[in-house]
Amino acid sequence: MTELFELPAELAIDTRVARRIMVGFIRGQLRQAGFERAVLGLSGGIDSAVVAFLAAEAIGSQRLLCVLMPYRTSSSESLEDAQSVVERLGCASRVVDISPIVDGYFGRAGGVSGAVGGTDGGADGDRGEGERVEPGALGPDAARASSLRRGNFMARARMAVLYDLSAAWGGLVVGTGNKTEVLIGYTTHFGDDACAFDPVGDLYKSQVRQVAVDLGVPERIIAKPPSADLWPGQTDEAEVGFSYADLDRLLYWMVDRRRSAEELAERGFDPRFVERVARMVAGAEFKRQVPPIAKLGPRTSGVDYLYPRRRPAPGT
Amino acid sequence: MTELFELPAELAIDTRVARRIMVGFIRGQLRQAGFERAVLGLSGGIDSAVVAFLAAEAIGSQRLLCVLMPYRTSSSESLEDAQSVVERLGCASRVVDISPIVDGYFGRAGGVSGAVGGTDGGADGDRGEGERVEPGALGPDAARASSLRRGNFMARARMAVLYDLSAAWGGLVVGTGNKTEVLIGYTTHFGDDACAFDPVGDLYKSQVRQVAVDLGVPERIIAKPPSADLWPGQTDEAEVGFSYADLDRLLYWMVDRRRSAEELAERGFDPRFVERVARMVAGAEFKRQVPPIAKLGPRTSGVDYLYPRRRPAPGT
Repeated sequence: MTELFELPAELAIDTRVARRIMVGFIRGQLRQAGFERAVLGLSGGIDSAVVAFLAAEAIGSQRLLCVLMPYRTSSSESLEDAQSVVERLGCASRVVDISPIVDGYFGRAGGVSGAVGGTDGGADGDRGEGERVEPGALGPDAARASSLRRGNFMARARMAVLYDLSAAWGGLVVGTGNKTEVLIGYTTHFGDDACAFDPVGDLYKSQVRQVAVDLGVPERIIAKPPSADLWPGQTDEAEVGFSYADLDRLLYWMVDRRRSAEELAERGFDPRFVERVARMVAGAEFKRQVPPIAKLGPRTSGVDYLYPRRRPAPGT
Repeated sequence: MTELFELPAELAIDTRVARRIMVGFIRGQLRQAGFERAVLGLSGGIDSAVVAFLAAEAIGSQRLLCVLMPYRTSSSESLEDAQSVVERLGCASRVVDISPIVDGYFGRAGGVSGAVGGTDGGADGDRGEGERVEPGALGPDAARASSLRRGNFMARARMAVLYDLSAAWGGLVVGTGNKTEVLIGYTTHFGDDACAFDPVGDLYKSQVRQVAVDLGVPERIIAKPPSADLWPGQTDEAEVGFSYADLDRLLYWMVDRRRSAEELAERGFDPRFVERVARMVAGAEFKRQVPPIAKLGPRTSGVDYLYPRRRPAPGT
């Protein structure tokens, strides 16, 4: 399997155990919420493909709805790859073209150029590191809105569609964010990170790949370079500037094994790489939290009013 | 001030203290995140009007952008009321008609009838109590999509617009959800509950009204019946089936003062009312949490990897 991708030794996992835990997690989350069905957005990439296979294993493919949401500039390969997952699983599916939604905001003329990317990340919750544009650029005008703003809007439009279809289908939205993107914040907040629960949020991208092999995800999906597919030729690794193998290794030693900057340097990680990733992880903390509320009363949601998810039942 | 609304005695607060805390909270949240500007969606209702006044007090009206996002069936009074807040504060504002976005999904023919409301709440995260429609109704077809699904889609479309403009403006999105709606889940998850922080999330609706009087919010906004403005004539109280005064009193004794069902009955609350509200509070727990992740590695986001918001800085 290692021909398909580079797998750092410390990230090798027992995929059978991981798979059993994730399948049980999906069943448990649905049962506890009182649901039997699930919905997810299938992008054609490896993360959502893996989650689709896991969900089908957990609840049966007839209870799973996969939603394919291309934009008019999305690559046709992405759609074909997503469709290959649907065919393999035999689950319900629906294609919703989000172009009218997105163009309804930015206008038809906008298009998505490949020129920008990562330069004016949103103020809050967006891909990129949050450098700000000047207030003069305010507005949805096609010429002014960068690829990044468009990409974030598209991710949120997909979320809105997915949640609408979850209401129609009567199923919960299963998340597809992996640990690498959750940690560095390479997500659109309230977009692709919005879900009822996330079975793969503790698997690094390299580990998602291992599980994909074990699950029998189509090889073409495993082998292709990961991409948010926001403009032609975009790849995650080119946009972020380092490989998943390097990034996953660093995150593993930094976050899971709590190594200091000095120890990471001794282990051979470039201090500038370490510093940049540490800054990304810290800067994305807000995406992993519920928005804070100002405490005013005796018990405050998120402060001292804290409960686990529970099924509606009488009593306080 | 009590002519404008009914204020249960136990909910009376010192509005000066509350105001000082909320204004300090807004400043602190922005400073800690490294921002000087703020953005919010102004609906014409009392909650967002209060937050706009508080934000203007905290950072100055020139650093505040208010976004007015009518749909083609929204009442013109709502827009006028929102505009009266902008005029009073002298802040930046922008009107974005969300009709092309919403109609781009549901189609132009849909309209929003007043006939439904609350009958087929979304599977996860939507207004209403979550009864499910039959899978046959799957799809965005205008005739089939209920007012509730449309309303939730509209709330999420507004979120996407607000976050896009937050990137352009370089400011954080300030939330406007009050304690009553946070507790009973009368919100669209990843729609109107999406924000960077929420200054009024620990104020019951009755208390928001008190603060509104103290802040000088236009009287017309304080006096009108609260409404999500999803169809003509909709009011929160008619939709939910009880008054804010009763609901706030019950929530106060149930949540803040931890009274049992028996004690609440002794205090004169109808046991059926108590049970229904307790069920709503429990059923909305998931909206007050980060989506759970299946634990697989040594440290897992939301499980044992937990940090407060922090400014990006080197180090682990």
